[in-house]
Amino acid sequence: MTAEQTFSRPDSLQVPAPLQIGMVIYPRLTLLDLIGPQTALGMHGITHLVAERLEPVVSDSGIALIPTTTYEECPRDLDVLFVPGGEGTADAMEDATLLAFLRNRAETARYVTSVCSGSLILAAAGVLQGYRATTHWTSLDVLTAFGVTADASRVVSDRNRITGGGVTAGIDFGLTLLAHLRGEPAARMTQLAMEYDPQPPFDAGSPALAGEQVVTLVKQFVAPIHLRTMQIAKAWRGHRPETIA
Amino acid sequence: MTAEQTFSRPDSLQVPAPLQIGMVIYPRLTLLDLIGPQTALGMHGITHLVAERLEPVVSDSGIALIPTTTYEECPRDLDVLFVPGGEGTADAMEDATLLAFLRNRAETARYVTSVCSGSLILAAAGVLQGYRATTHWTSLDVLTAFGVTADASRVVSDRNRITGGGVTAGIDFGLTLLAHLRGEPAARMTQLAMEYDPQPPFDAGSPALAGEQVVTLVKQFVAPIHLRTMQIAKAWRGHRPETIA
Repeated sequence: MTAEQTFSRPDSLQVPAPLQIGMVIYPRLTLLDLIGPQTALGMHGITHLVAERLEPVVSDSGIALIPTTTYEECPRDLDVLFVPGGEGTADAMEDATLLAFLRNRAETARYVTSVCSGSLILAAAGVLQGYRATTHWTSLDVLTAFGVTADASRVVSDRNRITGGGVTAGIDFGLTLLAHLRGEPAARMTQLAMEYDPQPPFDAGSPALAGEQVVTLVKQFVAPIHLRTMQIAKAWRGHRPETIA
Repeated sequence: MTAEQTFSRPDSLQVPAPLQIGMVIYPRLTLLDLIGPQTALGMHGITHLVAERLEPVVSDSGIALIPTTTYEECPRDLDVLFVPGGEGTADAMEDATLLAFLRNRAETARYVTSVCSGSLILAAAGVLQGYRATTHWTSLDVLTAFGVTADASRVVSDRNRITGGGVTAGIDFGLTLLAHLRGEPAARMTQLAMEYDPQPPFDAGSPALAGEQVVTLVKQFVAPIHLRTMQIAKAWRGHRPETIA
């Protein structure tokens, strides 16, 4: 709970302007990466689900979301720029239009953020180099290959880059980011509203807890994504789209 | 971790048939109630997002989902029948078509389930009376008013009714249900894939932890929903739609 020390109360008692929250969505994203933080932040602001076009985007679970705005129309100055992870991460890392959008909004966003393998997409956009960041536990070496300082913590804050670990870490990430943006009392109220008093049925949520056999199974499951994202990271030569292989 | 004792390994080494997962969606549902369990269960089966019509359904965060099937077309025999909670709970409790669908599929579903105030909708359908169940901590008294045995535990299993507490309890619920359906090894692997090793930034996830001031704020926030759902519960006289005031 030492993190609690670092959050200050809002400076003013006035009702603050709604947060402008820009969340990129792309084919085969993992919905929970997005919906965890969106639930924590959403009641304090306006969520923009951003895609190239206003057509449904199908997640890696098969459930489709409808974007609310496009790269062009998304507000310029965001409080939060956010990228989820998912099975479609490698394709997103090679989507020059998506990467250009991230680079553009990252220049002015108050916080540049991700959950799970979303940080690999930020790295491919060139906006994480020189920062500490985290990702899904199976992808930490890919972050390193991108020249990012990989940190296996569940939520990593380095200046205005805040990243969360795999999938469910998005809830811890979202409440932490909310405390930065709106102060600790707002985050505590939101945590109670979300009844976030976790009681996992098993001790299997981290590689250290789960044991070697389960770790091997999950690594096999994500092996194709790991291989391709690592290839992209190793071929990466800078943040201009034309240099991304 | 005593719950671990109660889950058995699958009887067969054959690859089991995909789970048939029917998840009702309705206006102003809370997305995280749905996406938490869907992430745990979805990779082991087929998710049917069920609504009256195949039109986008707008959640209480403003994000819209696209149903995959209708009440009419949804498979008859479901492994899981699931209802999320949300700001639209009271309207759903008075939606005779939705309630009739729940009553119908509950007759044959292997598990009849909910997260958060979704259990109030199951109660309004008349399929929870005689069972122990849980809901969001602010709604336990509404369950009682429906003649359901309210239990403040995070996940409550009573025969084939399995219910989860508020919002984020859906992850604990989903992994617990997965262990019932597919055995503990599958649930442990899924927990690691979801990196569910929660580290809440604050101790504020339950009324006991959050303190009186925060509890009062959240109760004020949900007061309109509580008032209306309680009125419906007190007027409830049985499970035939025409008797619901």
